[in-house]
Amino acid sequence: MTHNKSYTLQEIADFLDVELIGDPQCEILGLGTLNGAGTGQLSFLSNPSYADQLSGCKASAIIIGDQFVDKCPGNKLLSASPYVSFAKATSLFATSITDDARGLVHPSASIHDSVVLGKGVSVAANVVIEANVTIADNSTIGAACYIGESSQLGKNSKLYSGVTIYNKVCIGDNSIIHSGTVIGADGFGFAFDGEASVKIHQLGGVVIGDDVEIGANTTIDRGAIEDTIIGDGVKMDNQVQIAHNVKIGDHTMLCGCAGVGGSTVIGKYCIIGGGVGVIGHLNIVDKVHVGALSCVNQSIAEPGIYASGTMLQKNALWKRNAVRFAQLDSISKRLKEIEKSTDNK
Amino acid sequence: MTHNKSYTLQEIADFLDVELIGDPQCEILGLGTLNGAGTGQLSFLSNPSYADQLSGCKASAIIIGDQFVDKCPGNKLLSASPYVSFAKATSLFATSITDDARGLVHPSASIHDSVVLGKGVSVAANVVIEANVTIADNSTIGAACYIGESSQLGKNSKLYSGVTIYNKVCIGDNSIIHSGTVIGADGFGFAFDGEASVKIHQLGGVVIGDDVEIGANTTIDRGAIEDTIIGDGVKMDNQVQIAHNVKIGDHTMLCGCAGVGGSTVIGKYCIIGGGVGVIGHLNIVDKVHVGALSCVNQSIAEPGIYASGTMLQKNALWKRNAVRFAQLDSISKRLKEIEKSTDNK
Amino acid sequence: MTHNKSYTLQEIADFLDVELIGDPQCEILGLGTLNGAGTGQLSFLSNPSYADQLSGCKASAIIIGDQFVDKCPGNKLLSASPYVSFAKATSLFATSITDDARGLVHPSASIHDSVVLGKGVSVAANVVIEANVTIADNSTIGAACYIGESSQLGKNSKLYSGVTIYNKVCIGDNSIIHSGTVIGADGFGFAFDGEASVKIHQLGGVVIGDDVEIGANTTIDRGAIEDTIIGDGVKMDNQVQIAHNVKIGDHTMLCGCAGVGGSTVIGKYCIIGGGVGVIGHLNIVDKVHVGALSCVNQSIAEPGIYASGTMLQKNALWKRNAVRFAQLDSISKRLKEIEKSTDNK
Repeated sequence: MTHNKSYTLQEIADFLDVELIGDPQCEILGLGTLNGAGTGQLSFLSNPSYADQLSGCKASAIIIGDQFVDKCPGNKLLSASPYVSFAKATSLFATSITDDARGLVHPSASIHDSVVLGKGVSVAANVVIEANVTIADNSTIGAACYIGESSQLGKNSKLYSGVTIYNKVCIGDNSIIHSGTVIGADGFGFAFDGEASVKIHQLGGVVIGDDVEIGANTTIDRGAIEDTIIGDGVKMDNQVQIAHNVKIGDHTMLCGCAGVGGSTVIGKYCIIGGGVGVIGHLNIVDKVHVGALSCVNQSIAEPGIYASGTMLQKNALWKRNAVRFAQLDSISKRLKEIEKSTDNK
Repeated sequence: MTHNKSYTLQEIADFLDVELIGDPQCEILGLGTLNGAGTGQLSFLSNPSYADQLSGCKASAIIIGDQFVDKCPGNKLLSASPYVSFAKATSLFATSITDDARGLVHPSASIHDSVVLGKGVSVAANVVIEANVTIADNSTIGAACYIGESSQLGKNSKLYSGVTIYNKVCIGDNSIIHSGTVIGADGFGFAFDGEASVKIHQLGGVVIGDDVEIGANTTIDRGAIEDTIIGDGVKMDNQVQIAHNVKIGDHTMLCGCAGVGGSTVIGKYCIIGGGVGVIGHLNIVDKVHVGALSCVNQSIAEPGIYASGTMLQKNALWKRNAVRFAQLDSISKRLKEIEKSTDNK
Repeated sequence: MTHNKSYTLQEIADFLDVELIGDPQCEILGLGTLNGAGTGQLSFLSNPSYADQLSGCKASAIIIGDQFVDKCPGNKLLSASPYVSFAKATSLFATSITDDARGLVHPSASIHDSVVLGKGVSVAANVVIEANVTIADNSTIGAACYIGESSQLGKNSKLYSGVTIYNKVCIGDNSIIHSGTVIGADGFGFAFDGEASVKIHQLGGVVIGDDVEIGANTTIDRGAIEDTIIGDGVKMDNQVQIAHNVKIGDHTMLCGCAGVGGSTVIGKYCIIGGGVGVIGHLNIVDKVHVGALSCVNQSIAEPGIYASGTMLQKNALWKRNAVRFAQLDSISKRLKEIEKSTDNK
């Protein structure tokens, strides 16, 4: 799919609000990496360790920081934050929401009479929307999405095909939800009566803020009594699992396959690494960064970087060490004994 | 979505079969937590550590155990198991299966002529049901579900929208399956011929008992030759993965993102924590509880609580310790040497 | 679902190209395990530790290696690789692609006028195919699949129901993709501007080779600028997550719930165990085998078997050892001190 979009370098500089050094009429047809870009493409240098690729880069222009002006021979855009400028530039070449069939409702969609669709709302084939749903202006609903009773979607939001929204879910403006994601399924709540598990019907809902993006095949459960709450600007990757009554603070990011247990509260501006598991009923303050595949099994009261786990090793060595791990408390006690007997402590 | 349901406290006491102390005509419109409940709501005290919230609770009535009668000033329901009573009470305020369009088959559903639908079976929009499927009385099939050839669904069961059931899958009565779940996809079986992987076609099926609930985006594979088997009363959370030929005993619970490798047998009344991985070809007895994110890499012959992994730490400290883990066998041997040389052992 | 397929043992021997000892007219109606097989079934012995089950096996014939001829009383097929021969035999009893309604396009499918369907392509109910898609000969598209603009699917491929393919995804010949899998969703890319995350629109695509099988509810993201690339013969299990710009070498296998971070390159003939997490920007050479639930947090330059993590233990003991893990660097240093003071090193 060629996007057939073309800009002059000056147009891009104006859009990014950055200084241009070089030919303002230079034609930009797309983006490329320092290594991969060719004529007609705009590249960028964000990580200084790639600076030595500047001289050989075949891009027609490069977004760089001030400090690299001398090392960059051709056209350049000077940015205080090249990575942010690059991010903004990607929007120029994306298939934007406005490219969708704005305002069309496919005849195969099943939409209850009580549903309120705003101006410019698009609804694709085989969508099902239940009673009392409201969808605000300029949102697009991809093929085969399901939206349950009394749920709400803000304006300028986009559900890719195959998203499932249960009843009583409220999603804000400018949100993007990728395919296969399920929001509002029952939280995992049962009371054991001695013989079997009695279902605790999940009566709460889900409230999701503005500017949220949620990846593919992610699941966010509805609350047991009160709501599960996702703040503004939160970004979730694919296959994230959010249990009932979790609260995620504004602008927190959850990487692929992360999972958060029931009733846990995560602060603002946190980064939860890929595959991390956070157990239930914890409190995590703002600005906590948890390394990939860690197990968060205690509340975190201080901002900072945290991790758990062990290093990858060759299997034979790992096995020996893993066996010793099972003796670690004993090893520690034996060391203490020796320290005593040798007056070493 | 307001459920518009209202009961007198006496009606609820009768339904729960518990003793009422207070005003039998008190009107209950919903449920609330001790902290969050207001007038018209019923709350409960299960965890004794919240007992100090009793005095300030604004609920119209509270379900409590005998021992807290004196600390609870208003209307109360006395239960030997307040949590179980609360669980039962949630069913009074849930959107029950009977609220669905009982017995309606949406005109957009594609149902093979040979399909047998019981009395009161509902089939929503865009459902596809293949040849020789049978669905027993009063079950409901949500929008866009797919049910493959010769599969069976018991009575009073509910598939939420977007569930995929492959062919030759048998599901019992009173089951609930949430959106995005896939049951009966091929197990991951290949024989390596020295150059490439030769597919082992998966010829078994899946057999799931009664009273089973399965969360969203969970996957349960069909067996290679014989069937994958899920017992009665099993509860699975979201994003659980069950490989081919696994057997899960009755009433076992699998929390979010747990995974079970091929041919592993798990007993009855187990609790497999969130994110736990159980490798293949193991045997786990009844009443085993595995802590969150543990790796079960050996069979378990004794009931009890098990775990693996390390504690979360600040990253800098974790890194130092993780490096030492890679030296653990050596550390242990050096300790042994010193013990010998110092006659400490 | 009975498959109603029947072969003589001679037909099977010819198909597998192996030597037959016994009755060539013996009728084979299906396959069974050594323990479970009965009359009319063909079984196999691959793992020598099951050899003692040969004598009691009730199968009508058994696929075995030369060395077990004497221990196997009845009809047998002699194979240099019994497991590979068994794998091939499963194809005789599978519901093959050719059993599908070859060449039929369901009237409820929404197919853009510009789509090119090869000969014998089947499209099931409620499928949506966008502009400029091409699907090569003899491929089948299951119910409710979605295929985005300009994507391509090779010949003899099969999408089970409910697969989502975004735009600009290219999939090779002889591929199988199971239900709920999403290919081509946006990679997880954002640039933080000090206040919020700026979306990096994902402009790359996904390129998947021939003979690839992908399990259920797996996700493979599109590249940021360049493509995400999956080699020929790659096999992925359920709930695998592949981030943007990952490259997976030919014939590599990824077991259930494995995840690979952005821009990581994995070689050929690797086996990535269940639940393994590989962080981003790593290089892993050919023929690496990573044990289940390991965290790969560094590049791997040598073929071999690798692992991380600790052994499962009873919870009380685990807790004590896990606490000691947090002291491991200190333990190591104290040991060093004693070694010095006792002249042990």
